[in-house]
Amino acid sequence: MAQVITDKRDVDFVLHEQLEVEKLSKHEHFSEFTKKTVDLIISEARNLAVKEMLPVLKIGDEEGCKFENGTVRVPESYHRVYELFKEGEWLSLCDDPGWGGQGMPATVSLAVKNYFHGANFPFTLAILLIHGAGKLVEKFGTEKQKKLFLKNMYTGRWGGTMLLTEPQAGSDVGALTTTAVKNPDGAYSITGNKIFISSGEHDLTENIIHPVLARIEGAPAGTSGISLFLVPKIWVNDDGSLGGPNDVICTGIEEKMGIHSSPTCSMTLGSKGQCRGTLLGDENKGMRAMFVMMNEARLDVGMQALGCACASFQNALNYARERVQGRHLLAGGKDAAPVPIIQHPDVRRMLLSMKAYTEGCRSLLYFTGFCEDNIRISSDPAEKARYQGLIDLLIPIAKGYVSDRSFEICSQGVQIFGGYGYTKEYLQEQYLRDCKITHIYEGTNGIQAMDLLGRKLGLNKGQSFRDLLFEIRKTIETAKKLTGLEDMAEKTAAVTAELEKTAGFIGGMAASDKALTAYSHAYTFMDVTGDTVLAWMLLWRAAVAAQKLQAGAKGKDAVFYEGQIASARFFINTVLPVSHGKMAVILAADSTATDLSDDAFGGK
Amino acid sequence: MAQVITDKRDVDFVLHEQLEVEKLSKHEHFSEFTKKTVDLIISEARNLAVKEMLPVLKIGDEEGCKFENGTVRVPESYHRVYELFKEGEWLSLCDDPGWGGQGMPATVSLAVKNYFHGANFPFTLAILLIHGAGKLVEKFGTEKQKKLFLKNMYTGRWGGTMLLTEPQAGSDVGALTTTAVKNPDGAYSITGNKIFISSGEHDLTENIIHPVLARIEGAPAGTSGISLFLVPKIWVNDDGSLGGPNDVICTGIEEKMGIHSSPTCSMTLGSKGQCRGTLLGDENKGMRAMFVMMNEARLDVGMQALGCACASFQNALNYARERVQGRHLLAGGKDAAPVPIIQHPDVRRMLLSMKAYTEGCRSLLYFTGFCEDNIRISSDPAEKARYQGLIDLLIPIAKGYVSDRSFEICSQGVQIFGGYGYTKEYLQEQYLRDCKITHIYEGTNGIQAMDLLGRKLGLNKGQSFRDLLFEIRKTIETAKKLTGLEDMAEKTAAVTAELEKTAGFIGGMAASDKALTAYSHAYTFMDVTGDTVLAWMLLWRAAVAAQKLQAGAKGKDAVFYEGQIASARFFINTVLPVSHGKMAVILAADSTATDLSDDAFGGK
Repeated sequence: MAQVITDKRDVDFVLHEQLEVEKLSKHEHFSEFTKKTVDLIISEARNLAVKEMLPVLKIGDEEGCKFENGTVRVPESYHRVYELFKEGEWLSLCDDPGWGGQGMPATVSLAVKNYFHGANFPFTLAILLIHGAGKLVEKFGTEKQKKLFLKNMYTGRWGGTMLLTEPQAGSDVGALTTTAVKNPDGAYSITGNKIFISSGEHDLTENIIHPVLARIEGAPAGTSGISLFLVPKIWVNDDGSLGGPNDVICTGIEEKMGIHSSPTCSMTLGSKGQCRGTLLGDENKGMRAMFVMMNEARLDVGMQALGCACASFQNALNYARERVQGRHLLAGGKDAAPVPIIQHPDVRRMLLSMKAYTEGCRSLLYFTGFCEDNIRISSDPAEKARYQGLIDLLIPIAKGYVSDRSFEICSQGVQIFGGYGYTKEYLQEQYLRDCKITHIYEGTNGIQAMDLLGRKLGLNKGQSFRDLLFEIRKTIETAKKLTGLEDMAEKTAAVTAELEKTAGFIGGMAASDKALTAYSHAYTFMDVTGDTVLAWMLLWRAAVAAQKLQAGAKGKDAVFYEGQIASARFFINTVLPVSHGKMAVILAADSTATDLSDDAFGGK
Repeated sequence: MAQVITDKRDVDFVLHEQLEVEKLSKHEHFSEFTKKTVDLIISEARNLAVKEMLPVLKIGDEEGCKFENGTVRVPESYHRVYELFKEGEWLSLCDDPGWGGQGMPATVSLAVKNYFHGANFPFTLAILLIHGAGKLVEKFGTEKQKKLFLKNMYTGRWGGTMLLTEPQAGSDVGALTTTAVKNPDGAYSITGNKIFISSGEHDLTENIIHPVLARIEGAPAGTSGISLFLVPKIWVNDDGSLGGPNDVICTGIEEKMGIHSSPTCSMTLGSKGQCRGTLLGDENKGMRAMFVMMNEARLDVGMQALGCACASFQNALNYARERVQGRHLLAGGKDAAPVPIIQHPDVRRMLLSMKAYTEGCRSLLYFTGFCEDNIRISSDPAEKARYQGLIDLLIPIAKGYVSDRSFEICSQGVQIFGGYGYTKEYLQEQYLRDCKITHIYEGTNGIQAMDLLGRKLGLNKGQSFRDLLFEIRKTIETAKKLTGLEDMAEKTAAVTAELEKTAGFIGGMAASDKALTAYSHAYTFMDVTGDTVLAWMLLWRAAVAAQKLQAGAKGKDAVFYEGQIASARFFINTVLPVSHGKMAVILAADSTATDLSDDAFGGK
């Protein structure tokens, strides 16, 4: 049967053949997660996604959320799905079972999210936020805070958010003005206005716990004076019982391009002077706490984007196999029978491009989770640091590059449906609209590019970047020895060498008096780093596939492995030459964009 | 004052300084269109666009169209704008004044449309269709048909459409099944179902005239058996008075991603056996008639896309100058004052990219109109043929390449607004949604790419393509002699030479047994042809600007001209190296996409 959401065989391939996730179960930490268990988890997640989450995706888009007198109602059909989520314990996949988590490997959780986000990420967004807020409590909370809040959050009884953005403090978090004043009882009175708060208010849970960034009276300006507070919607008494409303009011929700079923709230705290919160972590260390959560949040955004892209690709592929239109290019004469559009060369180009990018991005995201798992099972601090460096380095790619490519895939997914793709009869246009938010939140993609160039490239004195190159070259060495892959291995080696050179160049420029020019090429640098990483991932896949074919794979398996090699070949032959062109652009260091006077942009 | 829709100075620059449109007025045909008159037209069009059309753009998106019992109501506020359009005689800009047209140069009409489409192309779409339908009557109608219909259409008293697409005949027009049976009185009975009919039904006019593609009983299969008919919604008696309804029923309208205020109708003709039409042009020559209209329609789509892009850019530029967020990269310490985001390098990169692309595309589209005007004023058949060849060659670029780049610009336009760009508070997200349709209708962009490779590259035995290269090289020769432009001229020459080589290569491959592979690279070929044409247009602009600066331009003018040179430099230095990479891809002729088995795409 034709698949929806994403290609099951390919998900399983990354888990079991590329990353060999079952090896993790040899370690005590993940001993429960044998291949059988992993397959069961994935199969159940897929069921829930296909049967419950996907069917309400379009309904959620059409109904949206309703705001009335400070309350927000999510689409009616979402309540059932939320209950299933709680029952199935799908909220806290990797967390400590003692607090209600499932303790599964991050690699596996990313496969689960691949299905969930692809089925309905405007819904799962709420879940991610609960988990993210819970994680802050777990990492920075006192025992009392954990006892009062954590299990109720990880099990989904209560909601969670992140109150960060303010009208004049978007990308510039340090400009925020929400204040906190310490009361005699040790709690703080919080006053301020927040915007763009996902799930800031809704009717899925009896309470919502808001981590809030605010500035304690007298704290320094900028990011170094920001503290983190835990502010419940309904006050929670010391015995765990609920008190009264805590003066946290939703004043409105945004009308948006997409993710209509996810309420984006404006929140007012302390308009009656009665909003209380407790400090989470240390004074003035709020930003540091945020950064701890950033990697996970950004990886999730990448997976949201990829979820859309995978689903759009799968729909497009199914449609292209069924939609009969036009004759085969080589068919003789106008009387030839029309063919399914998958036989038209330009449609094939789009489909193979969508296939290669979604596969490469899938491997990249799962691999990032795989690094996390290796940190958990390793007892060697150097090894842990190495994996952490790889994660930190890959995160801007996993968020920025993956969401950029995913949006393009969703656009092609509309294109393959032709006029139908533009109508709401199909999901294609919604995936495109929903996907656009992934360019923006959790740090715009421009900020990801700056992060890569400004922080990550030089991380650990450049060792993490060298570690990445080392990993890539390991795969190249393997591929070089496999018949039929030599040429691809060489081209990947060439792009890797050029990336190394380009990174050295732009890194040097960023630290020089030409920093402005360097940063005006940061986005292109993110692009070419992403291209190289994807070539690596696809070559790695091809190497696994070639070995399986050599070992005598037959039938459907053989077709799948041939498809793997084709993805790599297509990407390496049609994308990498363009990457070389982009690197030439960086190396030429054109400074027009930064030299130009503001007025010369025109329009006045 | 900050401008909206598009940059007036730049529109005027193309008209008067790049294309020197007033020279057309030396010819009898355009003698009325002196610089003064042209400026007056543009100024009035801009007024109407800014004051009347733009203010109802968002309202139109929110209200959409209402379908009830076969009738369609457009947004209430559109009626006023439509009346103003009729009063101001803005419907038929270039047509014969004897039939209600304005007889203006096409170049000028494109500047007018730049404002109109940028202000509200879901509205102007209806106007374009009336004009297109009228044009068919003008070109192919009998004297009687012209007398009965034409003036009423060109003056906007009646609406017009194009009934082409059917559920199983989208891109494959030849598969259509609507039938026409000749009656004793010479009229035809029409029976069939049409979909995706823009403005197929609405309440703006008392009547709507539908050109309908249908197959006369016994006609050959495929495109060579298709005839064109004129089918009024309300029958028009021989004395011009209105008869009864003509059994043309709207059965529903599409819910769409964008262009909500433009009704996209499903139409049923002859469900009661009472739909009549008259043959327009010759039997079985319907497709040829359609092709005559195709160039204009596709150029209009390019301008719709560019209209969105220009408006999105202008809004982004205004926002970037006002939005204060973050510190200057080179500012010392965290206490530095925040700056407008136009000072951030990555924002500048986006803005300059948007500027360069919109400017280059503007020149390309106006130039296409300029070629039309030169056909009109020329008495030399060879000259006319040369210009027609240039137009035919440039049309797939003007539609496909321009709409692709415009969509990307609209996406960056959202990006610069950050989270706000994703909300409906601003127009940015609507421009992105509306713009997406321009990739699809009037032939998908994939079809444009096939048209370029399959029909246009070899047009007139390749002479038109050589003519294009000759025009580009004329500009390069001029630029080479201008101080400061030598380097840009050389790089443009290099990309032009590479394009010539690539065109020869892919053209040869398309005619060989590797045709499938060639067509799988057609899209990339459209991309690089577009890049080269844009480099030409921007270099041309830079050459004009450099001459004005050398002649002593001062103040605001000097700033504008420096901006022109910057656009060219940015494009040539940051886009062309990537174009070279894309041409290397074509020349390597990877055939993975066409070699791969259908099953290996996966998903089963």
